[in-house]
Amino acid sequence: MRLAKLNIRTEIMEPSNIHVARIEAVREIMRSKGIDAVLITGSDPHNSEYPAERWKQVQWICGFTGEAGDIVITPDHAGLWTDTRYFIQAVQQLEGTGVELHKTRIPGEVRIPQWLATAAFDGSKKTVTVAVDGLAVNINTINGIKAAFKTAGRHLDNSLASESSFKIVDIPDMLESLWTDRPAVPATPVITLGEALAGESRSSKIQWLREEAERKGCSAVLITGLDEIAWILNARGSDVDYNPVVISYLLVTMDNTVWYVRKNSARTPDSETASSFEELQADGIEIKDYDDIFLDLAQEDNLSFDSLAVDPSSVNYHLAKILAGMKGKLKVVYDESPVQLRKAVKNETEIAGMRDAHLEDGLAMEKFLFWLDCRVKSGEPVDEWDAAQKLDSIRAEIPGCVGNSFQTISAYGPGAALPHYVTPEKGSARLEPHGLYLCDSGGQYLFGTTDITRTVPLGPCTALEMEDYTLVLKGHIGLARAVFPAGTTGCQIDYSARSPLWLNKRDYGHGTGHGIGFFLNVHEGPQEIRHNFNSVPLLPGMITSDEPGIYREGLHGVRHESLILCTDAGTNEFGKWRCFENLTICHIDTAPIIRELMTEEEINWLNDYNDRVYRILSPLLPEDVARWLRERTLPV
Amino acid sequence: MRLAKLNIRTEIMEPSNIHVARIEAVREIMRSKGIDAVLITGSDPHNSEYPAERWKQVQWICGFTGEAGDIVITPDHAGLWTDTRYFIQAVQQLEGTGVELHKTRIPGEVRIPQWLATAAFDGSKKTVTVAVDGLAVNINTINGIKAAFKTAGRHLDNSLASESSFKIVDIPDMLESLWTDRPAVPATPVITLGEALAGESRSSKIQWLREEAERKGCSAVLITGLDEIAWILNARGSDVDYNPVVISYLLVTMDNTVWYVRKNSARTPDSETASSFEELQADGIEIKDYDDIFLDLAQEDNLSFDSLAVDPSSVNYHLAKILAGMKGKLKVVYDESPVQLRKAVKNETEIAGMRDAHLEDGLAMEKFLFWLDCRVKSGEPVDEWDAAQKLDSIRAEIPGCVGNSFQTISAYGPGAALPHYVTPEKGSARLEPHGLYLCDSGGQYLFGTTDITRTVPLGPCTALEMEDYTLVLKGHIGLARAVFPAGTTGCQIDYSARSPLWLNKRDYGHGTGHGIGFFLNVHEGPQEIRHNFNSVPLLPGMITSDEPGIYREGLHGVRHESLILCTDAGTNEFGKWRCFENLTICHIDTAPIIRELMTEEEINWLNDYNDRVYRILSPLLPEDVARWLRERTLPV
Repeated sequence: MRLAKLNIRTEIMEPSNIHVARIEAVREIMRSKGIDAVLITGSDPHNSEYPAERWKQVQWICGFTGEAGDIVITPDHAGLWTDTRYFIQAVQQLEGTGVELHKTRIPGEVRIPQWLATAAFDGSKKTVTVAVDGLAVNINTINGIKAAFKTAGRHLDNSLASESSFKIVDIPDMLESLWTDRPAVPATPVITLGEALAGESRSSKIQWLREEAERKGCSAVLITGLDEIAWILNARGSDVDYNPVVISYLLVTMDNTVWYVRKNSARTPDSETASSFEELQADGIEIKDYDDIFLDLAQEDNLSFDSLAVDPSSVNYHLAKILAGMKGKLKVVYDESPVQLRKAVKNETEIAGMRDAHLEDGLAMEKFLFWLDCRVKSGEPVDEWDAAQKLDSIRAEIPGCVGNSFQTISAYGPGAALPHYVTPEKGSARLEPHGLYLCDSGGQYLFGTTDITRTVPLGPCTALEMEDYTLVLKGHIGLARAVFPAGTTGCQIDYSARSPLWLNKRDYGHGTGHGIGFFLNVHEGPQEIRHNFNSVPLLPGMITSDEPGIYREGLHGVRHESLILCTDAGTNEFGKWRCFENLTICHIDTAPIIRELMTEEEINWLNDYNDRVYRILSPLLPEDVARWLRERTLPV
Repeated sequence: MRLAKLNIRTEIMEPSNIHVARIEAVREIMRSKGIDAVLITGSDPHNSEYPAERWKQVQWICGFTGEAGDIVITPDHAGLWTDTRYFIQAVQQLEGTGVELHKTRIPGEVRIPQWLATAAFDGSKKTVTVAVDGLAVNINTINGIKAAFKTAGRHLDNSLASESSFKIVDIPDMLESLWTDRPAVPATPVITLGEALAGESRSSKIQWLREEAERKGCSAVLITGLDEIAWILNARGSDVDYNPVVISYLLVTMDNTVWYVRKNSARTPDSETASSFEELQADGIEIKDYDDIFLDLAQEDNLSFDSLAVDPSSVNYHLAKILAGMKGKLKVVYDESPVQLRKAVKNETEIAGMRDAHLEDGLAMEKFLFWLDCRVKSGEPVDEWDAAQKLDSIRAEIPGCVGNSFQTISAYGPGAALPHYVTPEKGSARLEPHGLYLCDSGGQYLFGTTDITRTVPLGPCTALEMEDYTLVLKGHIGLARAVFPAGTTGCQIDYSARSPLWLNKRDYGHGTGHGIGFFLNVHEGPQEIRHNFNSVPLLPGMITSDEPGIYREGLHGVRHESLILCTDAGTNEFGKWRCFENLTICHIDTAPIIRELMTEEEINWLNDYNDRVYRILSPLLPEDVARWLRERTLPV
């Protein structure tokens, strides 16, 4: 699991006054350009799940730091649209800004497209002009707005069907003139992974991509998803916090491969980056500047291909408009990128790397949990922030560790009940020698990525804490033990993790499992274990999290998370079978367990797991930690 | 569960020669009319799951009696397309007919549309003319053929885009001239259900339907699904075996309701039918002849409405073509009928009736199982057919029982392993005092419909029989005990029934639960409990079967089936909850159970269930049966 950072801003003006002034400045631009409404999103040009600072435009304009939220500004209204997860946070952060909260994912919600088309302006307005930053909006959003205006009886400006009409104006980097200290497009050092680490050469991946393009009847393919590009090129950066990607585009034709990436900054003086670029060029990859993509795709003479495959989920509107302008010269096939699925199925080398990463990570986790136990028992004060710092520092010492895979969630008691808790540096809760402490964290290693949550008792627990702990654990074990026929998708086995909670009328509001990259993003598709329908079968080689939970406002939160590798479980008269192998190696505390709530199979699973953890880790741990771990892993 | 009947045909010609001659006769028609291919399906004009004899055209032409199968005849080829369930049966029944089996639901399958468009004719053929019986084909099938030809580069005859083209010719009742003894459109007696039985008047249902039409922006709605019509009108017939429906169409405008139904046959002399028709007319329902629908919808002057809602899943191509011909005069809105969902949510009266039906049905089942046990123990020969006859006769004695809800499946040993076993009248297997006997049956009552499967040991069982019996029972209990949040759909809880089997790498190839009508079809939607995605939530009032199974070719089959009613399980801080109430009242035999494979909760559920069955039924059973039932329901 992974959360947005809550930056504490210290400015001279009162924060709310700053935001009022910024919104007014946007309105000034609107007046000067004849714009009726501005849509501002927090997306980057690649529709990344987590954007770099440069694209935190919603935060800049109104102070809201939630991961999901869009702003619309009209002459007489400014509104933030966000979902249930962020209502409380939004109310706090919007105070004094004049920005109104529009709630989504609730019954009767009015989303931005419908609001723009029906509520924002009265019928007397002949033409509505909506401005967007085309770099920060994907084409699905634009299509949604178009559809809403059409439903409302307004037609696009070039239509003759109606008197009333609307326009969408693309203003790339719209806020640039106001946001004077706006961060540049990130350009961190670029490293490459050799075949020994990645398990497949970039040449082989590019060759495969060409075959995929041909299968779609295309002579070229444009890759816009950042993790896809990193995977294809066996290249990594740190352009986005926690996500080892490089902000770029990749164009693969039958004869050429062009990587559009920032060269002119911090990146090039760096000797590692220089040699990475040389290695790529030696493999026949041309390196051009990031923005050259727009010029290259707009010029007919430049094109050595007549048809281009593009993934509509990660291409931005600005780029799509350029491609639309090539109509008649270039056939654009909008279709899901094949890279997502292939990247999700880890190869043998990647799996071996992930195993190594989990061994190192497990050692770090056990050292941390030992330290935590001693520290709390010692009575010396320790708070959530201290604990997170300790864990991060232990992980940072591991050779090959290049950082966390997301910001560590270190939460005690009520903090753990907030699904999007961010541990504050100052004033975080003190850990007391009772109740449950939840820690969700992960590391980025040159040879893999980890994501683990352990909920541990700091002393005596209440009956409700123990019940919740046990029921969530039953769910965790239910998914880990699952056996299922080939072709089964995540939504068909989500029940395995939820049923112990459901039988007791308890539930959690998030998915049970997300895909995870190989030294890449901690969240990736296309598989997913949750109730929503997903047509992607779980395939051998896919790695997914197993993280049921329970959250009680004001009381406590429980989550047990390990990563599980889908494997082949053999074939019999009933067909081919799949199961999971647990990759995470860190004990699960048995103290808060209510024995009678568990079946024999569950108890056996737990004892086997803890015993395995002890046997693997103890020879590699300091003696005191190993001794402590022996006690914690005795069978129940 | 429900299977097609296997009619034993006794004709003078060898069956295969008859079919060769019939196929040749079809080719004769093709030659005379310039037709290149004929598609023959086994559907009725309402896309019913089970057609009346009149529409068993595939069976007539080639002898194949499977429930799913379509025939295509070209000048030099005749093929039957059917799925995995029917391969063995098809090979047997097609022998000597010259009809080739085309397998579907297998990797690399070529379905009829693709075969027609790519394999049936070589490129030299300028125009391909495909004839269909528009009454027996729905529009989705036609759209599939059109799409396949388009993909293959052929365009519909009215297109100027291409030189090569294809035509679809609609010949209603195409086989009529050859099939001299073809049964007429059925016209069995029609009865009505008063509000005391149905829980809602037809006037109320029609009023609701008008509001639904308006919600779709329509001034009329055409209902083509037979069970929908029966539900709206509170009318029942027996036009289709086991399905208490009346072959008809229903047109509801804002001012009128017209029922298009056969009047001129066996139906009208019948005094019950006459008074049913009078009752309907008194409620303002106009009764017109079945075929008048085609005339009425084709004549602009007749129409008192300008827009019509039609369900594409049950309207036939012939009718859709007539509607298409009214373009400009009538707006046709193709959209799912709202009747399916409302019909699936039973009202209080219907639920009370279903409870009564299950009490009567349970008594019949226990009497039957007692008889079976005594008979097998007595050593007096008894075969599968005898057992089915006995059960049917006991059920037939129940006041209000109007017949079976499907043909009783009475299967011993290997017979039970065939998912589509039909108990033969002559030569059925003799029941031996060992192993498992499976009986799947149900009744149609004026106050409800039942569907139950019990698998019972006739004596000692093998270890594998006991294992399978126990694992399937665990699955049955898993679904029956399920608790889930409001909004959950069937595919999200299918795992509850499958996981005990999956954990042991066993599975079954059918769904876990189907909806069931109130004195209506034994299969109905829109809800379904199976792995395929279905977006319809399980709502309080919906009744579904719970029927996991396991089938081992040549050995045995196990299925445990009860009907379960979705109910409100209360609301708490985590939301609204749903669970199931078991409607079926018939004990589950405990003898073949392997105790160690079951959890305490499962054992408790089973003991509670059997105890409840005994307490409810024993006072109403003959003393010897009650005594026997006491023994069979003692706690394990």
